[in-house]
Amino acid sequence: MQKTRIALDAMGGDQAPDAVLAGTLLACDPLGGLRIAPERVLLVGDRERIEPRLAELGGDPGVEILHASQVIGMHEHPATALRAKRDSSISRCVQAVAEGAAGGLISMGNTGAVVGASTLGLGTLPGVRRPGIAVTLDLTGQPVTLIDMGANIVPKPQHLYQYGVMGAVYMRDCLGTAKPRVALLNIGEESSKGTEVLREAHALLEESSLEFVGNIEGGDLFQGIADVVVSDGFTGNVVLKLMEGFAGFMLGLVLRELKAHDVTWGPEALARVERNIDYSAYGGALLLGVSGIVVIGHGRSGAQAVANAISLAARTLDAGVNEDIVRGLESGAREATT
Amino acid sequence: MQKTRIALDAMGGDQAPDAVLAGTLLACDPLGGLRIAPERVLLVGDRERIEPRLAELGGDPGVEILHASQVIGMHEHPATALRAKRDSSISRCVQAVAEGAAGGLISMGNTGAVVGASTLGLGTLPGVRRPGIAVTLDLTGQPVTLIDMGANIVPKPQHLYQYGVMGAVYMRDCLGTAKPRVALLNIGEESSKGTEVLREAHALLEESSLEFVGNIEGGDLFQGIADVVVSDGFTGNVVLKLMEGFAGFMLGLVLRELKAHDVTWGPEALARVERNIDYSAYGGALLLGVSGIVVIGHGRSGAQAVANAISLAARTLDAGVNEDIVRGLESGAREATT
Repeated sequence: MQKTRIALDAMGGDQAPDAVLAGTLLACDPLGGLRIAPERVLLVGDRERIEPRLAELGGDPGVEILHASQVIGMHEHPATALRAKRDSSISRCVQAVAEGAAGGLISMGNTGAVVGASTLGLGTLPGVRRPGIAVTLDLTGQPVTLIDMGANIVPKPQHLYQYGVMGAVYMRDCLGTAKPRVALLNIGEESSKGTEVLREAHALLEESSLEFVGNIEGGDLFQGIADVVVSDGFTGNVVLKLMEGFAGFMLGLVLRELKAHDVTWGPEALARVERNIDYSAYGGALLLGVSGIVVIGHGRSGAQAVANAISLAARTLDAGVNEDIVRGLESGAREATT
Repeated sequence: MQKTRIALDAMGGDQAPDAVLAGTLLACDPLGGLRIAPERVLLVGDRERIEPRLAELGGDPGVEILHASQVIGMHEHPATALRAKRDSSISRCVQAVAEGAAGGLISMGNTGAVVGASTLGLGTLPGVRRPGIAVTLDLTGQPVTLIDMGANIVPKPQHLYQYGVMGAVYMRDCLGTAKPRVALLNIGEESSKGTEVLREAHALLEESSLEFVGNIEGGDLFQGIADVVVSDGFTGNVVLKLMEGFAGFMLGLVLRELKAHDVTWGPEALARVERNIDYSAYGGALLLGVSGIVVIGHGRSGAQAVANAISLAARTLDAGVNEDIVRGLESGAREATT
């Protein structure tokens, strides 16, 4: 039972704790679509703030609370804050997983602190060299998982190969893609393109048993030719933030044009367009490769995004993604040495 | 006179030679907006194809033709093609500049071949370590110049600093930005963010006399907080192609929504939106740092984009951008050593 529990950082995110608590109620609503058993959720944070707010928002559905007296702010320096705040909600979430009181954790808080605390506190899965951040976007009406979005900004070729395995396992186990097509983000299609690291990663991916479709360029993300896109964490992070900024910019231009033509367009249509590049729709980013499920939500997550994150963590735990990553890397290693 | 001439690759691009010839006529039209003197244009390519097509398209306005018997295709391997085709239109354009028959060149052809031939054939400007590709986009209603978009995928900190100088000189000389704000594309605002190369580049830019505004993230490109954005060529190339692909993708989503609401929207409105991320509006990409003006147009350039490219080359030549880059780097070097 403990291992199916999810430690949820009640204090992380721009709208904490309210959005986290409301999201918990949404996820556990017996009449809702997600129907998470309340005993699977372990709310981590300031008990004196959580209990009364939970009562005000609709009443405790039966979740346990783990007290943590401190909060790491969104803009604090991760390493410094983790050292100074031993009783932070993020540290306590990680500790709960490390000690077996939970199988996974979720935080909408300081991404650097979540990645740092999880990597150090949980360690990597057997065979995994470096964890990577995976996000799933509906870029073409079909989900596409991009990995790594910033955990590892100067990866080695072996890390990139492993990101391909991890992304493919996630897509297969949680999104039902039977044989995920894996691509490498590069500046040209030919295997000779890009840095030496990328050329070596291309060779490793090609030798592997993955369904590797080769290099793709930035514009190909929208062509539906890959289910998993492997990237170094630096480029991945720039790309992810660029897409967020660009979507808002483009929609602004469109709205200006529509207004000039006296066309009114509802906010719900805008929201539908934005959803395609919003990884909250899939519940947040996953830090894959650590010993435990780690979901990093967007700081501005509202209740629905928090509920999606709880659902994502539960599905990833239940599907045995981490066990399959270990097996996938083992079989790849066997193939490479035989 | 020779030095103000522009060698124009008549055979490069998806619609060559027609788009190039029509663009030349547009640029030289005495009643048009650009009014380039015909004697400034040196058309380079197959004389037997150029002369009759020029006559059919409206008659020779008085441009000279330099014969070149070979064409490098858009998808040929640059180095191999340049070695095999000594009489290619790209090689002859570069040769014209190297020998002083022209001050600049324009090609809509194979980007790798243009960059390779120009870098080797023209050499770098005094003080310049590595050329960089600059593109200017109207991201916020104001022009923003991004440099480097792919000439140098593993730059050293000094190269990035020099891209800042080159981009700022171009913005000041050609786009009238008195004190261009220079930013470094990174994964966080703090100077400690990113790779070691970026941290060192940040220090060099901060020490310089440039108006350095620090690191910006991918989403900040659309915030209007920088006039010049310096990037490694790998990330720059991914970002540029991503924006092109993303714009088409977003507009597709928008059109689908509009159609579902029975809203019709003209193609001219779409074109206005797309223009904001189309660097052809500014005439193409500039390879800055080589001894000569080099404009690389988009392969799919039509006549108007070709005319814009001719105008860009003429303005860049006339403004003395290259002379100012050399002076800018000299004064920077003096400051750094005193």
